[in-house]
Amino acid sequence: MRPSGRAPDEMRVITIETGFTKHAEGSCLIGFGDTRVLVTASVEERVPPFLRGKGQGWVTAEYSMLPRATHTRSSREAAKGKQSGRTQEIQRLIGRSLRAVVDMQKLGERQITLDCDVIQADGGTRTASISGAWVALRIAVDKLMASGALATDPIMSKVAAVSCGIHGGTPVLDLDYIEDSAADADANFVLLEGGKIAEVQATAEGACYDEEALLRLLRLSRMGCDRIFAAQEQAVRG
Amino acid sequence: MRPSGRAPDEMRVITIETGFTKHAEGSCLIGFGDTRVLVTASVEERVPPFLRGKGQGWVTAEYSMLPRATHTRSSREAAKGKQSGRTQEIQRLIGRSLRAVVDMQKLGERQITLDCDVIQADGGTRTASISGAWVALRIAVDKLMASGALATDPIMSKVAAVSCGIHGGTPVLDLDYIEDSAADADANFVLLEGGKIAEVQATAEGACYDEEALLRLLRLSRMGCDRIFAAQEQAVRG
Amino acid sequence: MRPSGRAPDEMRVITIETGFTKHAEGSCLIGFGDTRVLVTASVEERVPPFLRGKGQGWVTAEYSMLPRATHTRSSREAAKGKQSGRTQEIQRLIGRSLRAVVDMQKLGERQITLDCDVIQADGGTRTASISGAWVALRIAVDKLMASGALATDPIMSKVAAVSCGIHGGTPVLDLDYIEDSAADADANFVLLEGGKIAEVQATAEGACYDEEALLRLLRLSRMGCDRIFAAQEQAVRG
Amino acid sequence: MRPSGRAPDEMRVITIETGFTKHAEGSCLIGFGDTRVLVTASVEERVPPFLRGKGQGWVTAEYSMLPRATHTRSSREAAKGKQSGRTQEIQRLIGRSLRAVVDMQKLGERQITLDCDVIQADGGTRTASISGAWVALRIAVDKLMASGALATDPIMSKVAAVSCGIHGGTPVLDLDYIEDSAADADANFVLLEGGKIAEVQATAEGACYDEEALLRLLRLSRMGCDRIFAAQEQAVRG
Amino acid sequence: MRPSGRAPDEMRVITIETGFTKHAEGSCLIGFGDTRVLVTASVEERVPPFLRGKGQGWVTAEYSMLPRATHTRSSREAAKGKQSGRTQEIQRLIGRSLRAVVDMQKLGERQITLDCDVIQADGGTRTASISGAWVALRIAVDKLMASGALATDPIMSKVAAVSCGIHGGTPVLDLDYIEDSAADADANFVLLEGGKIAEVQATAEGACYDEEALLRLLRLSRMGCDRIFAAQEQAVRG
Amino acid sequence: MRPSGRAPDEMRVITIETGFTKHAEGSCLIGFGDTRVLVTASVEERVPPFLRGKGQGWVTAEYSMLPRATHTRSSREAAKGKQSGRTQEIQRLIGRSLRAVVDMQKLGERQITLDCDVIQADGGTRTASISGAWVALRIAVDKLMASGALATDPIMSKVAAVSCGIHGGTPVLDLDYIEDSAADADANFVLLEGGKIAEVQATAEGACYDEEALLRLLRLSRMGCDRIFAAQEQAVRG
Repeated sequence: MRPSGRAPDEMRVITIETGFTKHAEGSCLIGFGDTRVLVTASVEERVPPFLRGKGQGWVTAEYSMLPRATHTRSSREAAKGKQSGRTQEIQRLIGRSLRAVVDMQKLGERQITLDCDVIQADGGTRTASISGAWVALRIAVDKLMASGALATDPIMSKVAAVSCGIHGGTPVLDLDYIEDSAADADANFVLLEGGKIAEVQATAEGACYDEEALLRLLRLSRMGCDRIFAAQEQAVRG
Repeated sequence: MRPSGRAPDEMRVITIETGFTKHAEGSCLIGFGDTRVLVTASVEERVPPFLRGKGQGWVTAEYSMLPRATHTRSSREAAKGKQSGRTQEIQRLIGRSLRAVVDMQKLGERQITLDCDVIQADGGTRTASISGAWVALRIAVDKLMASGALATDPIMSKVAAVSCGIHGGTPVLDLDYIEDSAADADANFVLLEGGKIAEVQATAEGACYDEEALLRLLRLSRMGCDRIFAAQEQAVRG
Repeated sequence: MRPSGRAPDEMRVITIETGFTKHAEGSCLIGFGDTRVLVTASVEERVPPFLRGKGQGWVTAEYSMLPRATHTRSSREAAKGKQSGRTQEIQRLIGRSLRAVVDMQKLGERQITLDCDVIQADGGTRTASISGAWVALRIAVDKLMASGALATDPIMSKVAAVSCGIHGGTPVLDLDYIEDSAADADANFVLLEGGKIAEVQATAEGACYDEEALLRLLRLSRMGCDRIFAAQEQAVRG
Repeated sequence: MRPSGRAPDEMRVITIETGFTKHAEGSCLIGFGDTRVLVTASVEERVPPFLRGKGQGWVTAEYSMLPRATHTRSSREAAKGKQSGRTQEIQRLIGRSLRAVVDMQKLGERQITLDCDVIQADGGTRTASISGAWVALRIAVDKLMASGALATDPIMSKVAAVSCGIHGGTPVLDLDYIEDSAADADANFVLLEGGKIAEVQATAEGACYDEEALLRLLRLSRMGCDRIFAAQEQAVRG
Repeated sequence: MRPSGRAPDEMRVITIETGFTKHAEGSCLIGFGDTRVLVTASVEERVPPFLRGKGQGWVTAEYSMLPRATHTRSSREAAKGKQSGRTQEIQRLIGRSLRAVVDMQKLGERQITLDCDVIQADGGTRTASISGAWVALRIAVDKLMASGALATDPIMSKVAAVSCGIHGGTPVLDLDYIEDSAADADANFVLLEGGKIAEVQATAEGACYDEEALLRLLRLSRMGCDRIFAAQEQAVRG
Repeated sequence: MRPSGRAPDEMRVITIETGFTKHAEGSCLIGFGDTRVLVTASVEERVPPFLRGKGQGWVTAEYSMLPRATHTRSSREAAKGKQSGRTQEIQRLIGRSLRAVVDMQKLGERQITLDCDVIQADGGTRTASISGAWVALRIAVDKLMASGALATDPIMSKVAAVSCGIHGGTPVLDLDYIEDSAADADANFVLLEGGKIAEVQATAEGACYDEEALLRLLRLSRMGCDRIFAAQEQAVRG
């Protein structure tokens, strides 16, 4: 039995509230259970130096936890003067995941930055960030298309992410904080609608795992992402 | 006429949603019009080095704007590796303002940190932060009292803050971003319930001002803070 | 009775030694009693990026305390690798205060930087810095006018600053370190010759204050600034 | 055909030169083809603060590229004043991978730091680092056992890592730089002798991949790691 | 002929004003011609971690140039967030030079920090710093002896420093800025009263030099240091 | 008797292995006994901002110790976020020494960076770095000449460096770590083939020294550098 009483293949409630802030070109507050991430998409009509003059765009991400998103207060990275390795690793993952579904030629010479700020953490903040970032990006790109700035849609597919893990010997979907702290293995899957894989990160925590377990986690992640794709669709097409 | 159509002595709508996050000992999302700040109060059973063993507590604050709280995206301070002078100035002001109403002996050897994260900015983020911080602090202290950790209430008074300024030659209350950008003078008042003053910061922007204008702004701020005190009361006693 | 034996409305001795260093376009060593600040004005024929090509100038300030300006040695900010919040707050105040009396159009596309380095501290370092910065600026601008680089005088007025506070229940002028450490309230006023106000910062330290006290402090600051204006005049016109 | 002329399941030459430096408790220079990483294992009789007094040890890693390990010189992280996100991500992976095969109770309250410095880079620097780190760790632990500091062996298994990827539509083993730059997908597998998995990181670069490809890459990695386990054995047992 | 009209073996005027600031245990403003350095000696009853409990003291130094000590304004190291290599090199030299004449056992477990802040630069700032630091140190140690904190004098000798160089083919003493900028070689000698050498740093700038030139510079430095020793004596014994 | 059993004027074995890494335009692994430094020369077709458009080149150096080059592990500068004063001092010395033998006009608008990474330390790392840097530079310049990028040779002379010191009262050549730790004086000489001096740095550690000792050390250094010049010649001309 999972601490939350959920079945092994049961996602937490997914909530996506679009338009949570008014200035960003796209935004949403995404919830996976008690995990809540505010994602904004900011469009800028310039690209990083390494892309200037190449006629293509860029999508990047930044990630942060508010100091008291967690059970005990963690110190503010801006006050410490640097981002942790964990923060950098996560924001690189978010950026890669979104770039996997964007045609940079079609985007043109502009950059979209996805800011993922964790308001409340209860496991799965990076996967909620990726899943919400797609929604914010979709809204921002829709505005660019509506305004005529973009003629063709640069977004090639939906992308979503979910964590799975082995908890108490059982492969389970969408770990919350209590499960995550005690999992033997912890995996994050970034999947495209249709089944292609953008990224797998599967890490042994307490005990190494075998190929069969990896495949079982991948199957669970497909079930979870299907739920997220539906929630994304409802959020943007409402 | 003000850009928003408000009367010179008219505050924007004040909203205070308590318990916005679940981990913090106290929290609220405060709104002054479109300005929205998430404030959390975190209680830690330790004090900074300079107070150790003195039998008294400490209240401090940190402040940050999410990158896309503003009209155009500003870079993330954690990524730049340092907090701006503006950020430090504001968080020092918030900390001082709250310490002005707390009896540190009664608080005992513990620290309460007030994290003010601006979700959306439309003028008055520091005054909303102070006003919301009092609510989060009140809730956290109430919990300490309910649990028996505190025998007597260390909070001596309500404290609130509001900005006023001279816009188009007229003293006005509670500047929004459009007014703030074009004001000749910009003042922040931190007041206690009952009328005492904790802090005045009145700065000429476009043109220096005279004593009469300062007094007129102070009177406006009293009207604004009375409105905030009522909203604070309703939020915590609801 | 004040620790120094001064009357409540009595300034410390003001000394201004111009031309203290030979390289700067303007410089002075200003003393408010034992507080001594070396101020230099550096003229550069360029402006910050946000002003380029707009045909107007900029005035900015930097502030620092030598490590042993104080009773006990404080660590060097350059060695720690960052400026404290206090330092940044003070240098922002100095810059704003001087900009309040300069017509940026008339200054033309050049920047004047006012470096305020505290040689010895005994209270009032920020107000001595502002008052001395005006002298260094005046000398530097006079040179620009004498050389023909400037046709009309961009300085619109004198500006001076002084601290006041409530000490032992009595409003007093120009706090020294002993008074400052024990004051119930501490205020800094930045005034223009003629009576206009550029900035008021009035902070409760031990006890909040009322409107009457604020006005009494403002009146004291007018008396102090008149003394400083006279000293500035004598320093620059000899 | 691969640029190097290798067969899809063909590893580059593996070289491991132990005892490359004399001060470290364990060291080796590992080569995967032209990639060369110097790994040292340093034993210190203390643990990080979060483990003090718990009677268990810690294994951690640091990673760096010499500025001219690469085709064009990259700037030195010590001179830039911070480690890149890539560096931090890699050193976190190395540390996790080695911790997966060490029994921290048996290690006792001591820390072993694995420094992986890339002398020459030609793809696969992180996997060579992990594979070499095991050798350096093994040598250091053998010394601790020989000296009587350790009674039982805390190392539970060999661990090795290899990269695989999809290049030109074909799954291939042990990417060199030319292949890595043009791969559609790039995966790193960290495996234990016996077949258990410590970590999978499989990232789409140019095109997302399907489950079959993931499994094919995993099979290739097993072939590669078997080769590395043999080289490790020969290196430490001679 | 030297630009200043001085003879090759002629020092600039040496001025030493003791007691320039009131808080430091020892202080002086030293001038070598137009070069002016404020030196303070701060006594602290603690030693750095590596010396704790060893019953001996430490002498260290910090060096800084005020931003407008120079012909054109240089940026403030505290604002840039790090000390330059030049600054660190100089402060290490000053510390070593003073430690060469102090018996650390006799000093006891206390640290004396010599802060050398260049008010005005015209060549020779590091040598003026060393020469002035001895004066500030002497005054601070005299106070410790007068108060009974020290029973025997830990200062074993005077130490002074002077720069020499080859300018226009001629070895000259005590380079000013104009000469320094055009010198073929630039040497700093740190000498003890009596003739022993604490440090030689002789650097080719435009052209390498031979042994004879090195010896000629050393002889010049002896003449210069004799002048400085006399000025030190007069300053402290007055 | 020296700890190593060497005669006072006996160098350690000098080894120079050229082409140690494949990407750099020039590289070598130089050994002075157990001290081993990897030096690479990187040619870039650009110069630092202060030289742009002046038709001349630049030679610069960076220096670093691998964390476990030393007896006990020292922390990584990239992880600490700044280079130590010692590191900066050494890399400035290396750069100056190499610039002393390069005609910057003949080099043309390009920069050559000499990266000196200490693989293993046993005294004399800075002098081995300088001596090895000349070899890497020579190889890189030979390639530029062979390719036609340079018509005339910008290298005017060989340059080498060696440390000497006074150990147990005796002047000795080429200190190893044990001697260096116990030396009364420690000197580094940078000499040109033919006898000219590029730099002398002679520092008293335990006891100040006299002129005769300085000259004796200089004579020893000439003997040592002659050995190094021969090794350099053999390395580059094979």
